[in-house]
Amino acid sequence: MSASLIIASSEGDSNLYYACRFMAPDPFVFLEIDGRKTLLMSDLEVDRAREQARVDEVLSLSEWEAKAKLRWPQPRLTDTVTLLLEDYGARTAEVPSDFPLEAADRLRERGITVQVRPHPFFPQRVIKSAEEVAAIEEAQRHTETALAAALDVLRESVIRGDEVIWKGRPLTSEDLKKVVNVSLMENDCIAQHTIIACGDQGVDPHNQGSGPIRPHQGIIFDIFPRSSTSHYFADMTRTVVKGRAPDELKRIYDAVLAAQLRGIELIRDGASGGAIHAEVAHTMEARGYATGVVGGRNQGFFHGTGHGVGLDIHELPRISRLDYQLKTGQVVTVEPGLYYAGRGAVRIEDMVLVNPGGCRNLTRSPKMELLEL
Amino acid sequence: MSASLIIASSEGDSNLYYACRFMAPDPFVFLEIDGRKTLLMSDLEVDRAREQARVDEVLSLSEWEAKAKLRWPQPRLTDTVTLLLEDYGARTAEVPSDFPLEAADRLRERGITVQVRPHPFFPQRVIKSAEEVAAIEEAQRHTETALAAALDVLRESVIRGDEVIWKGRPLTSEDLKKVVNVSLMENDCIAQHTIIACGDQGVDPHNQGSGPIRPHQGIIFDIFPRSSTSHYFADMTRTVVKGRAPDELKRIYDAVLAAQLRGIELIRDGASGGAIHAEVAHTMEARGYATGVVGGRNQGFFHGTGHGVGLDIHELPRISRLDYQLKTGQVVTVEPGLYYAGRGAVRIEDMVLVNPGGCRNLTRSPKMELLEL
Repeated sequence: MSASLIIASSEGDSNLYYACRFMAPDPFVFLEIDGRKTLLMSDLEVDRAREQARVDEVLSLSEWEAKAKLRWPQPRLTDTVTLLLEDYGARTAEVPSDFPLEAADRLRERGITVQVRPHPFFPQRVIKSAEEVAAIEEAQRHTETALAAALDVLRESVIRGDEVIWKGRPLTSEDLKKVVNVSLMENDCIAQHTIIACGDQGVDPHNQGSGPIRPHQGIIFDIFPRSSTSHYFADMTRTVVKGRAPDELKRIYDAVLAAQLRGIELIRDGASGGAIHAEVAHTMEARGYATGVVGGRNQGFFHGTGHGVGLDIHELPRISRLDYQLKTGQVVTVEPGLYYAGRGAVRIEDMVLVNPGGCRNLTRSPKMELLEL
Repeated sequence: MSASLIIASSEGDSNLYYACRFMAPDPFVFLEIDGRKTLLMSDLEVDRAREQARVDEVLSLSEWEAKAKLRWPQPRLTDTVTLLLEDYGARTAEVPSDFPLEAADRLRERGITVQVRPHPFFPQRVIKSAEEVAAIEEAQRHTETALAAALDVLRESVIRGDEVIWKGRPLTSEDLKKVVNVSLMENDCIAQHTIIACGDQGVDPHNQGSGPIRPHQGIIFDIFPRSSTSHYFADMTRTVVKGRAPDELKRIYDAVLAAQLRGIELIRDGASGGAIHAEVAHTMEARGYATGVVGGRNQGFFHGTGHGVGLDIHELPRISRLDYQLKTGQVVTVEPGLYYAGRGAVRIEDMVLVNPGGCRNLTRSPKMELLEL
């Protein structure tokens, strides 16, 4: 008989949280045999797990360690797991692709067959239930509130030369990030790496932005918090300008928007992520926006069109060169961008729910024009 | 020749961040051969890594994939890593204990010897540099500011019957957590699982607390944020009362405080963590506070005395039944607690820096009396 086995901290491992709906900071053991779910918990967590975890039984690690001591003088966690597997009649453990190597090697030494079950470990995680969609939408509402708070700061600020003045001093990316992140925290959402990147900083899509905000340049807001209550993520990107946008930036914006709308239009149950990505890229190329290495630096559109969102910020499916077929119930981002040093950087991102005949956009913040504040 | 190899996301893997000082959300490859550090980065991250990472070279994954395609039609990441290892003359890779099993199995299939290097992967990570201690202390200052903000809310509140009224309505754990977490966020610190547990909620040390705060009961504040700028953690626990503390709770507090002070007194270079833990436990037992399962529930003192703090909230060394020798430059918590359902729960925690002749307490919040607010 075969068991599904995870040894991890559910704070760092979304598969484990998905499997047992119990959040704990330190590693613990999850077993599923014949549809029956078991946790093996330390003294510190066993009572809380019995109250909160959505599993069939919670065993005490110290009790099982005591049994393991009858066989090995100083049992390791993997020895205790070996005993448990044997007791349940399982000689094979199917584990996630990121199962810790040391534990796998030790279980194998004890005669357990440890096999990686291909990613995704729980295929049903890719399809969101109504409850999961509601959690993602709630996080998205808080994301929009946080963006609105930051845009209000830009509206309140005044342009003086090449500076944007707020509360008597130059406004910075750091100021805006604080406004966004505090707003999110007020709604029990945690944003780890909010991007607020002005001008050429935005040309690197993962540059989080720093220093003074400049007028008449693009400012990319990419906000992707996790709810501390539901543990689901949301994800949204908007590009705005404080002051007047240069014509070239407006044209880049229009090209990205056209590509994004085209991508959303193509999303439906059964659609090919690879085909959507190609069409999104083509929409921008057809307007003259090329992709390639210029001056030793990637420019144009050099990331995927989108990714799944759920208990992880980046999960399956992908809408990219790697092809995945979209399915009803998936929540995916659509986030093309164009990045040219000295000319402008724009990214626009919504989250949508895949439906049989199309998709439902979970994002409400406006995007149809390059916002000049 | 042997290489150190990590494949992980540095957001989720502190060893990787420690090795390259580059924060990225998606998995990437770190290699160290003969003291020379190399990163293999996707197009999305390669430019930012070249600017920010403290390594000797940053290679482009897409360029190396193109080379791997000459040998395998559809190379996986592990194939590209195999090629890179061969190119550098390494046939053996030493990896961390939590190295992903699937990658290890694939590298082994390609003829690479993959060996787990025992934890800690980077032994020097356990000893903090002056720069690291300063980062931890800065996070600790923000932790103290956040606690002070929450205590101010308790001071402003009024007791009405068995409720604590704030801003015209019953004060809750959730309210206090918001005050703490927003204060931390204003100082660029992120608290994921702040514990504010009142009364019997505190008997479960990892219960985060919820619902109304009650007067005349212990309230445990355990605050352990991570700085978003330095990425180092701090950790502190205080127990206070809104109203008048029952005598029994005061006695429990005094026992925990005596044990905590005794623990701090014993910490020095060369001291045994196991001996300190035993002495801390004994200090409370000697005052009549027993540990064991009562009514199917762990009660008394059933967790370790302390743990290292750094890029992870729980790292080596441990001050617990598992014995570790303390060394100068380690930053550890000292956090005994006593937990009795219906009688009271108290935990007191400071962070200290181990010195040759003792330790330096990095914590400034008062603790010498059970605070009645």
